[in-house]
Amino acid sequence: MESMMIYMPIAMAALGLIYMLIKQSWVLKQNAGDGRMKEISDYIYEGSLAFLNAEYRLLSIFVVVVSILLAIVSFVVPTTHWLIVIAFIFGAVFSAFAGNIGMKIATKTNVRTTQAAKTSLPDALKVSFGGGTVMGLGVAGLAVLGLTSFFIFFFWFFMDSTWTNTMDMTIVLETLAGFSLGAECIALFARVGGGIYTKAADVGADLVGKVEAGIPEDDPRNPATIADNVGDNVGDVAGMGADLFGSYVATVLAAMVLGNYVIKDMGGAITDAFGGIGPILLPMSIAGVGIIISVIGTMLVKIKSNDAKEPQVMGALNLGNWVSIALVAISCYVLVIWMLPETMKMDFFGEGLQDISSMRVFYATLVGLFVGAMISSITEFYTGLGKKPILKIVQQSSTGAGTNIIAGLATGMISTFPSILLFAGAIWASYAFAGFYGVALAASAMMATTGMQLAIDAFGPIADNAGGIAEMSEQDPIVRERTDILDAVGNTTAATGKGFAIASAALTSLALFAAYVTFTGIDGINIFKAPVLAMLFVGGMVPVVFSALAMNAVGKAAMQMVEEVRRQFREIPGIMEGTAKPEYDKCVAISTEASLREMMLPGLLTIGFPLLIAFVPMIFGMNNLAIAEMLGGYMAGVTVSGVLWAIFQNNAGGAWDNAKKSFEAGVLINGEMTYKGSEAHMAAVTGDTVGDPFKDTSGPSMNILIKLTCLIGLVIAPILGGHAITSTVTSTQFVETTNGVTDALEVDMISLDAENAKAIVTKTFTDNGNVMAEESVLEGTLEEVKAAVAKLQAENKK
Amino acid sequence: MESMMIYMPIAMAALGLIYMLIKQSWVLKQNAGDGRMKEISDYIYEGSLAFLNAEYRLLSIFVVVVSILLAIVSFVVPTTHWLIVIAFIFGAVFSAFAGNIGMKIATKTNVRTTQAAKTSLPDALKVSFGGGTVMGLGVAGLAVLGLTSFFIFFFWFFMDSTWTNTMDMTIVLETLAGFSLGAECIALFARVGGGIYTKAADVGADLVGKVEAGIPEDDPRNPATIADNVGDNVGDVAGMGADLFGSYVATVLAAMVLGNYVIKDMGGAITDAFGGIGPILLPMSIAGVGIIISVIGTMLVKIKSNDAKEPQVMGALNLGNWVSIALVAISCYVLVIWMLPETMKMDFFGEGLQDISSMRVFYATLVGLFVGAMISSITEFYTGLGKKPILKIVQQSSTGAGTNIIAGLATGMISTFPSILLFAGAIWASYAFAGFYGVALAASAMMATTGMQLAIDAFGPIADNAGGIAEMSEQDPIVRERTDILDAVGNTTAATGKGFAIASAALTSLALFAAYVTFTGIDGINIFKAPVLAMLFVGGMVPVVFSALAMNAVGKAAMQMVEEVRRQFREIPGIMEGTAKPEYDKCVAISTEASLREMMLPGLLTIGFPLLIAFVPMIFGMNNLAIAEMLGGYMAGVTVSGVLWAIFQNNAGGAWDNAKKSFEAGVLINGEMTYKGSEAHMAAVTGDTVGDPFKDTSGPSMNILIKLTCLIGLVIAPILGGHAITSTVTSTQFVETTNGVTDALEVDMISLDAENAKAIVTKTFTDNGNVMAEESVLEGTLEEVKAAVAKLQAENKK
Repeated sequence: MESMMIYMPIAMAALGLIYMLIKQSWVLKQNAGDGRMKEISDYIYEGSLAFLNAEYRLLSIFVVVVSILLAIVSFVVPTTHWLIVIAFIFGAVFSAFAGNIGMKIATKTNVRTTQAAKTSLPDALKVSFGGGTVMGLGVAGLAVLGLTSFFIFFFWFFMDSTWTNTMDMTIVLETLAGFSLGAECIALFARVGGGIYTKAADVGADLVGKVEAGIPEDDPRNPATIADNVGDNVGDVAGMGADLFGSYVATVLAAMVLGNYVIKDMGGAITDAFGGIGPILLPMSIAGVGIIISVIGTMLVKIKSNDAKEPQVMGALNLGNWVSIALVAISCYVLVIWMLPETMKMDFFGEGLQDISSMRVFYATLVGLFVGAMISSITEFYTGLGKKPILKIVQQSSTGAGTNIIAGLATGMISTFPSILLFAGAIWASYAFAGFYGVALAASAMMATTGMQLAIDAFGPIADNAGGIAEMSEQDPIVRERTDILDAVGNTTAATGKGFAIASAALTSLALFAAYVTFTGIDGINIFKAPVLAMLFVGGMVPVVFSALAMNAVGKAAMQMVEEVRRQFREIPGIMEGTAKPEYDKCVAISTEASLREMMLPGLLTIGFPLLIAFVPMIFGMNNLAIAEMLGGYMAGVTVSGVLWAIFQNNAGGAWDNAKKSFEAGVLINGEMTYKGSEAHMAAVTGDTVGDPFKDTSGPSMNILIKLTCLIGLVIAPILGGHAITSTVTSTQFVETTNGVTDALEVDMISLDAENAKAIVTKTFTDNGNVMAEESVLEGTLEEVKAAVAKLQAENKK
Repeated sequence: MESMMIYMPIAMAALGLIYMLIKQSWVLKQNAGDGRMKEISDYIYEGSLAFLNAEYRLLSIFVVVVSILLAIVSFVVPTTHWLIVIAFIFGAVFSAFAGNIGMKIATKTNVRTTQAAKTSLPDALKVSFGGGTVMGLGVAGLAVLGLTSFFIFFFWFFMDSTWTNTMDMTIVLETLAGFSLGAECIALFARVGGGIYTKAADVGADLVGKVEAGIPEDDPRNPATIADNVGDNVGDVAGMGADLFGSYVATVLAAMVLGNYVIKDMGGAITDAFGGIGPILLPMSIAGVGIIISVIGTMLVKIKSNDAKEPQVMGALNLGNWVSIALVAISCYVLVIWMLPETMKMDFFGEGLQDISSMRVFYATLVGLFVGAMISSITEFYTGLGKKPILKIVQQSSTGAGTNIIAGLATGMISTFPSILLFAGAIWASYAFAGFYGVALAASAMMATTGMQLAIDAFGPIADNAGGIAEMSEQDPIVRERTDILDAVGNTTAATGKGFAIASAALTSLALFAAYVTFTGIDGINIFKAPVLAMLFVGGMVPVVFSALAMNAVGKAAMQMVEEVRRQFREIPGIMEGTAKPEYDKCVAISTEASLREMMLPGLLTIGFPLLIAFVPMIFGMNNLAIAEMLGGYMAGVTVSGVLWAIFQNNAGGAWDNAKKSFEAGVLINGEMTYKGSEAHMAAVTGDTVGDPFKDTSGPSMNILIKLTCLIGLVIAPILGGHAITSTVTSTQFVETTNGVTDALEVDMISLDAENAKAIVTKTFTDNGNVMAEESVLEGTLEEVKAAVAKLQAENKK
């Protein structure tokens, strides 16, 4: 059983994907309505496909360029194999495929939800959540399937599926990082491009349709209305999916890297029932079990009564969510106790090697689950309808747009307080429990429910679209009433889902950051060195500038949309009377092209900066380890500032949105009930306009920025380091007494000098345990040194 | 000559202060006008005094509380003497006194400027800039006078005015840090409290006056109008003055600390013509010469033609500014070459001791001057009238307040790009030239022109007030025209002055941060340790939350003001007809009380967080050096995030302000000239409302936050470290050969164990230069150890 454990995650992923296929065919078998409904749904479907196809074209070019770069890297760096290119391509393809599944099912499910809502709310929930489930399991299943398959392949390819030493395993994991990088690059396109798309279409449609032409939202006469609905899918479904796909893969990868580091700290090899790789297999196993748990969680989401309201629907989702979190906690306990040595040794910086029991690793996973649950509550508090911060923004709307804006900004800013304290506490606690391996496993545990989380997230835009279709096809009001209940719940889950995505990005980046240090072999990142401090500043600046670029991109793309809609209104006769059909496809094309064009600059910023920091000083002959430390400072700056700006922008945006929505039911301002159309409401609408790019474009983009930055760092780490690839291969060889002093000669380290492509064996002289001197005794290619050490070991055994 | 050099800065400061007194009496002798003009000016003067008095009451309590805390610290920590309390009190008193001089002269000069503007523009400039000069030289003179006097006193008190060792000098400088802390605490009150005051009065006056009652700005019927004018002085004069006073003192102090560190790196003592303290005297000397240069600079500011326009006035200010920068560069060259050893040794982290020529220190000072000049240009580009970013915001105003806000936010965010690259480049370059001593001297050189900078800064609000008085006392239009020219120039200098203040705060914090590390004796701040990383996150969050609190404070205080103005309009008959006088003093009182009350929470956040981080883990028995590293991580987080948010908020606010002002002369939007009162203008007004607290309250507060955080760190550093206080007092003592191995015994270190209040002498065994072992050979009180070492040295000399 234990020896087969390496295949367990694949099996679980396969099971999850099979369940997904069953669910998918069930959803597709549902009645898709007819006439106008079907027509609109088809437009949205086709618009989404148009975006995907355009995105894939651009992606192909991008993947080819990056593949060439990676191939060069793999030739230059001995610890990076050319297979990283294959892993990269597959990572990109898997992520894109998962996004494709999600988009397709979401755009097929919306109309079926509308149709189901004609007869029953429970059925409408079942259909819409079914669509979400397909998305969630598709992403989680493909992520685990891809990552673990490549691990097994590389483990076989580089190590013959048997433990040799941590250096070889580092090569396996370094090559595996390509898969993660591929996935995150897709996320850049899907999340940033998608974010620009969705808001450009939204703002464009509103500015001309609602404001200039005076027609309601989702009116079929508006040429941009289909683009607007496509945008919901592009941004919230495909974007969120790719984001979490990337987090999921990167988290598990980072935990594996740190698991390898634990083995190194324990002397370079452990004996367990899992072929000596228990600490490396554990994160994959948690991910695998998480998929089955997600399946169970999604099964629990159902309501019975046709008269149910928001609380019942929310309750059903919560039940599924909480049960899955509890099940993850239980399985973490079982897996940790089973798979890890009872006591491990871990190196704590500045404190040396410490004994860590496996129970402490379990506690670290609990920290992760706690963060996942808490961050949602915090987000909910700062952005939820009827909560204090929202009521305050509503009050401030009465004195105009200016005070509404200030209140919204302040809310977003203050929301960083509990969120950052939570993250800081989590870093501290999980590290105190089990070092950076603990931090990475906390992230892994939190991400284990990704399938379930994404099902809940994707359900929102599906319900939103279903409502839009009901409106556009002029259904009975009861249909819209039912979809509105789902939509309202979907809005809440969208906000908490964003919180989860930030938390996952933050923890993932931390885990990657830790993995980066172990890969480069630097002994820490000392910000008292001025170049490192300078890079901390530069890193801190990048998320701010990135956000501004993303916001400006929305503005530019929206302006193009506005002009196109104006042109159609002007040039197509009968469009306003509903006798002529608008050219929906032209608007979709504009959004598509603009979003992909406008994401170039922020994308370049994300990818270019770490490369510049790594390679420009290299050209000037700077020491590689010094560069590695600088790049580490940059990564830390991006992460700290990026997490702050993500929380700030998401929560400010969410707060403005719900402050505006509060006016729909009416709010009490200075003792007077105030509704839509009031001056205060107009002020709140202004706030929402500012908040839209915050919460849907620049805010969520931060997740990608910080993860991708850390991943790029991880991939180029071996170029900078190489000294990391040290491995204790032998213990004390002989003892010598001269001049009354007892010296012990220990061949205790093989370090790989990446710059000169040679391996070095160091001899350490100790005097009663104190290191007196170190001396390099053997140098050569890695193969030569390995052979020499093996010979030495064989001689000693005699 | 050389031996008297220690008194040079005091002499220069005294000269500067004498010149200030002459200038002051000249300004006060000018015609102060009569009737209405004089009456209004008196109201403003009294309102300012009312604020100052209220502030001083609160300050006294605060100073007493902090003094008690400091007294406790000085009892617990052997390297901190109780004299730090005296230094602290004097630092607070000097800063408050400088602010007092500035406020008084500013409020006296405004009416005299109006009066002078009746006849001549050159005279109006002479009077208004004369007031600014008094402010500038008062601040610079008192800062240098106070700091250097205390240094001379402590140097005599602790070291008998003769060099002993770096440990003793550390005690001198540690005690001197009290002066800097006192000054910065006043800055907290003046800048944050003043920032809240000025915007609460401004927003309150506008909301009821302009919007509700429809009367123009600065109308004497508005009860809040005096408070508004007082606010300009409180925020822009006293706040800016205290800010720069604090930066000035802290920068010089940090440079002195790092100068002491240079001496330590050079073996614990140097031989030069300045009693062996050349590197410590240098920053004081640069500051002293800077005062005389500032006097020269201010003398150059004059125009001749009565028909001069903005460019001529700006040109006169620029001439003075550039000449003073050039003179500072020349004197830095002379002083550096004269006062520093030709070659120094400096310890670069990770690179060991390096030989640094004094020319390289000079290059570092040039870096500082370059940053000071560049940051003003960058600020000018992003916030200047007619520049591209402003024109873009103007264009975006045509589609409503929402797009105007987004454009303003994006401008502020993007402006961090060149600014941060400039700072990062400056850190890198000045460190590469001369280590952290170079960074601190770069800051010192930049700050040398503080007198001149502040004269230019203070001139703005004086001109603004002069215009207000002309308006309120209904002068001839030509008077307002002339003051408007001065005001327009003042607006530009206000923006660039803010840039200078940020740059000074940033460089000061970096220098303090470096000094902190040397005080604690930690070997760097490694953000790969999870607790340090967690604190980096927490530190990054604090500026964001601080800004939000400051913004909310403005909102709350403004609301109180609105209610008071409404009450007066309602209850005082004849107020609108101008027959009854409004109760100006009530509005002043409200602004005063509200601002001081509302600054409590952000102030507590600033002071409380570092104390919590230092002392809570201490209670739980955490290692002191680990705590010191955590606190360092926190300081870095606050600095990086604080600088970012300062630039973002100041520039966004400045950009919105000038986008609004663009409409006064008319702007071309979509081919149409658009003026005040248009829809686009209304959108721009909304942007300005959001920008007001950004640029005048939360933005400038960041300067204080980051400096005060680093200063608090510096003051508690010896509690955490103590190991820093090491000093090489003797060289090799004897050589011993045993078993054919040559051992050298070297008593090379006295380290002070702060926790146990004892000194330790360490014996180092070396084998042909390699350190083989260290051993503690002598422990006791500092006095005992000193005596023993002296005896040992005496024996060796025989």
